[in-house]
Amino acid sequence: MKHTIQALVENKFGVLARIASLFSARGYNIDSLAVGETQDPTISCMTIVVDAPDERILEQIKKQLHKLIDVITVVDFTRRDYIDKELFLVKVEKKKKGKKTLDKLIKKHPVKVIEEAKSYYILEIYADRHNIDEILRELEKIGIQELVRTGRIAINK
Amino acid sequence: MKHTIQALVENKFGVLARIASLFSARGYNIDSLAVGETQDPTISCMTIVVDAPDERILEQIKKQLHKLIDVITVVDFTRRDYIDKELFLVKVEKKKKGKKTLDKLIKKHPVKVIEEAKSYYILEIYADRHNIDEILRELEKIGIQELVRTGRIAINK
Repeated sequence: MKHTIQALVENKFGVLARIASLFSARGYNIDSLAVGETQDPTISCMTIVVDAPDERILEQIKKQLHKLIDVITVVDFTRRDYIDKELFLVKVEKKKKGKKTLDKLIKKHPVKVIEEAKSYYILEIYADRHNIDEILRELEKIGIQELVRTGRIAINK
Repeated sequence: MKHTIQALVENKFGVLARIASLFSARGYNIDSLAVGETQDPTISCMTIVVDAPDERILEQIKKQLHKLIDVITVVDFTRRDYIDKELFLVKVEKKKKGKKTLDKLIKKHPVKVIEEAKSYYILEIYADRHNIDEILRELEKIGIQELVRTGRIAINK
């Protein structure tokens, strides 16, 4: 099961490396990670998405996160009421064949063409956990040349 | 000077920790980091924003990144023609006083109210390197309760 975990941490060098090591030492791969400053520049917010086949191990990781001196709070959004979002920049092939799929995608989802070149479009896409798989499937039909994702962020309601 | 660096890496556990250590070992703090899967699930894309007062040290870090076995490519966008974006989720105070500033912000920038509660709004904001400082200043006037950022991502034109 995928878990979305958020930690407020001191904005110091070394903190990211320590947290990343905590996960990798247990053989846990991080699906996505987004780290940025908060309104207080001395504090950063990390949003981590991790696939946890064994919930007990995840509980241990969360406990260890809590114990790190530079970690202020840890929240697991899994059973909460939250809003999540992710941003994509995607370069797709500009072909006659894919045009219909692209038009349909733009109509149905928050997808915008922000650059049109001779052989490609660059799209800006905003997805959440409910529509992301569908969007990725449609993009594949069009032909992805480059795909850059921010990773998920989340906020409590 | 702020640098936006992007690395394609093998999607394996331990890679993130190794890369984070590379920066922290040189005393470099990462301003923001966004990591997500690419169209190939075995490859992840990391976008790192770092403030580099000494460009020679940054050159060394980039060279060391290149040498890591799990790193496929490293690009420094600094002197390139690129598009960058960042996504914010922000909880702001719902007060009469801030309403005008909020309305102005929504009119001028890609800012959307996605949730309205009794005491707060949740906003979804898309910023780039050109408008981000202005948006943050206006948000502060309104009153930030919570601010979650994805960190910047970028794509070559």
